[in-house]
Amino acid sequence: MKINGNHHHTIWVKEDDEQIVQIIDQRALPHQLVIEDLTSVDDVFLAIKEMHVRGAPLIGVTAAFGMYFAALEAFDNQEFIHYVKASAEKLKSARPTAVNLAWAVDYQLSLLSNNPKSLPATLLENALTIKKESIERCRKIGEYGLPLIEDIYRKTQRPVNILTHCNAGWLACIDYGTATAPIYAAHDKGIPVHVWVDETRPRNQGARITAFELKEHGVPHTIITDNAGGHLMQHGKVDLVLVGTDRTTRDGDVCNKIGTYLKALAAKDNGVPFYVGAPSSSIDFSISDGLKEIPIELRGEEEVKYIQGEHEGGIKKVLLTPKESSAANYAFDVTPARLVTGLITEQGICEASRKGLVKLFH
Amino acid sequence: MKINGNHHHTIWVKEDDEQIVQIIDQRALPHQLVIEDLTSVDDVFLAIKEMHVRGAPLIGVTAAFGMYFAALEAFDNQEFIHYVKASAEKLKSARPTAVNLAWAVDYQLSLLSNNPKSLPATLLENALTIKKESIERCRKIGEYGLPLIEDIYRKTQRPVNILTHCNAGWLACIDYGTATAPIYAAHDKGIPVHVWVDETRPRNQGARITAFELKEHGVPHTIITDNAGGHLMQHGKVDLVLVGTDRTTRDGDVCNKIGTYLKALAAKDNGVPFYVGAPSSSIDFSISDGLKEIPIELRGEEEVKYIQGEHEGGIKKVLLTPKESSAANYAFDVTPARLVTGLITEQGICEASRKGLVKLFH
Repeated sequence: MKINGNHHHTIWVKEDDEQIVQIIDQRALPHQLVIEDLTSVDDVFLAIKEMHVRGAPLIGVTAAFGMYFAALEAFDNQEFIHYVKASAEKLKSARPTAVNLAWAVDYQLSLLSNNPKSLPATLLENALTIKKESIERCRKIGEYGLPLIEDIYRKTQRPVNILTHCNAGWLACIDYGTATAPIYAAHDKGIPVHVWVDETRPRNQGARITAFELKEHGVPHTIITDNAGGHLMQHGKVDLVLVGTDRTTRDGDVCNKIGTYLKALAAKDNGVPFYVGAPSSSIDFSISDGLKEIPIELRGEEEVKYIQGEHEGGIKKVLLTPKESSAANYAFDVTPARLVTGLITEQGICEASRKGLVKLFH
Repeated sequence: MKINGNHHHTIWVKEDDEQIVQIIDQRALPHQLVIEDLTSVDDVFLAIKEMHVRGAPLIGVTAAFGMYFAALEAFDNQEFIHYVKASAEKLKSARPTAVNLAWAVDYQLSLLSNNPKSLPATLLENALTIKKESIERCRKIGEYGLPLIEDIYRKTQRPVNILTHCNAGWLACIDYGTATAPIYAAHDKGIPVHVWVDETRPRNQGARITAFELKEHGVPHTIITDNAGGHLMQHGKVDLVLVGTDRTTRDGDVCNKIGTYLKALAAKDNGVPFYVGAPSSSIDFSISDGLKEIPIELRGEEEVKYIQGEHEGGIKKVLLTPKESSAANYAFDVTPARLVTGLITEQGICEASRKGLVKLFH
C-alpha cells in the first residue's frame, strides 16, 4: 500500500545488497518513517521481540529472513546444522503467541540440507516465496471479505461503519492486511466506508499504525479509545467488526490483541457481525481450546506505565501512573469461537468451527 | 483519606477565609499535588467543566459551593433572584451526564428566599451539609459492601481480587469513595485485597487517580489497560467487579465512565459478580431507560489524541496519533440493569431493578 503516494512493503531485500533486509521500524510511526537495516539473526530476533516489526503475518516473514541470516552466519561454522537449528530456536522464542513465527521458521528448517553452500540461497528464495504467498493470502482475504461490506452498503445506502482493533492492516503483513484487506477492497471499489479505530493500549497500534495507514490510503476513519466500542454498538453506529488473529485453533477460537474478546462480547450483545481476517498461516490445527492451550505473552509493565508520543518535533516518553504502582501487561486474549460470526481466509469465508475449517482446508 | 500520611478531603472552605473554597486540582495527579482556590461561580463552572474536580458525588458538592458563590455575587445585584437562577443554569450546563450536579444545584435553589442578606449563609451552611451527607453515604456504602468481600475471603482464604474502572474513590467524592469504600473497609479490617485498576482512557482516572489513592492508603493494586479485564476474568483472576455510577435509572440501568459496559459483559460471561457503589444522590428516579434517556457527554477529541504525563520532572503533553486523524470522545456508557448483580447504596444492597430500588427508597 502507499505511504505519501509511494507504494511500500513492510519488509524487502535491499536493492543493491542481498545481505541486507530492510524494514519499517514501526515504533516511530506515525510521527517518523524510519527504515532499518537487518543483517543478522540477532537483528531479526531483536526487531521481532522489541516490536520494530509486529503483526502475525509480518513476524512470520521476518523470521523467514532471519533463517536466511542463520544460514549465512553458519556458512563458516563447522557445526553449521547445529547453528541453524539453534538460531531457529532463538527466533521462535522472540514472541510466543503468534503461530506464524514458528510456522515460518519450521518451514525454513524443513529445507535444511547437508550442503551449507547452497543453503543461504535456498532460504533466501524461500523467504521471498513466503513473503509473496503472504501477500497473495491477504489479497484473497480482501476479495472474499468484500461482499460482506457490499451487502451492508446495498441495504443501508450510507457509509458502512466498520470497527477494528489493533492493527491487522498492511503494516501487520506485507501488503493489503488481513482485517483491512476487505476495507481497502471496498474503498478502492468506491463503496463508502468509515472505520472506527480502537487505539489499542498499551502500544496503541490502532491510534498509531492503523490510523496512519488508513490516512495514507485516504480511508475515512475516527480514532476511539478501547472503551468506546460497546457504546457505539449499543447505538447502532457499528455495522461490522473486522479484526485479525495471531493464532486460530482448529475449533475456531481466535487469539488476538488484548481487548478483542471485549469487542466480541459487545458485538454479540448487540447483534453486530464479528469477522476475523484469518490467513491459513495463522491457523494452528494442532490445538483445539484457545483459552487453555495458547500461551499468552506477558510483556513488560513499562509499556503500560509509560507512553511515547510527539512533543515539539521529537518523540518523548511520559510516565502515566504513580512511579511506585505496578502494572500487568498481557498482550493477547482469546475470543471463543461462539462469539465469532466467521473467519475470512484466503480460501473463502467459513464458520469458526472445526466443521467450517475442515470444509475449507481438509 | 490520607495523602502522604495526612488526612484530606477533596474540597473544603479555606480555614481563614470563608469566601474561598479549596480543591485538589486533579489534573496534575499523581505527579503533583496542586491545591486550587475557587472564589466565584465562574471558577466553579470551569473547575467542573475542565475536570479539575470530577466524579459524580464531588461534582455535586462542588456545584453546591458554586451556588453559595452565586448568592454572594448576587448580593449587590438588583436582580438577585434572577442572577442566582442564571448561575444555577450555568453550573448545571458544565457537564450533562452525572445527575448529582443538577441534584445539588436544585437542592440549593429550593432554599432561595427573597432575603438576599441571609442567602449566602444559608447556601454555605447547606453546601457543608451536602458535603457531610455525601461523606456519610460513602461510609455507609463501605459498611454495606464490606460483607461481599469478607464472604469471598472466607471461601478462598487468599487475597480477594477486585477489578475497578475509572476512579470511584475518595477523590471522586469527599472521602471513602463509592466503589472503593468497601475496599478500604476490608483493607482496614485486615482482609487481604488486591485491586486491578483499569487505566480508563482517555483521561486515565484509574492509572492516575485510583492508583494514587490506593498507593497512598497502602492497598495492593496493579494497573492494567482497559483491554485486559476480560482476559483476567476468563482466567479466574477477578473475584468481584466494583464500579461507581454517574446516574442510575429507577429501573437499575447504570451510566458510568465509558468502558464500564464492556467489563459488565465480561463479568456476566464469566460469572463474576458485578456491583455498583450507588449513593442515592446518583439515582435519577425520573427516568427508566438509561440507553435512551441519559445524555452522554461528548468531549473534545484532543483528550484522545494527546495525553499528558511526567517527563524529566515536568508534566508534558504528547501527541499519540497522526495529527490529521480525527477522534471521538464519548465520556460515558450505559450498563443495562440485566448485567448488574447489585447496587450498593447507603441504605443497603439491592437488586438493580425498580423493585429493588423501591424496597430501599420507597
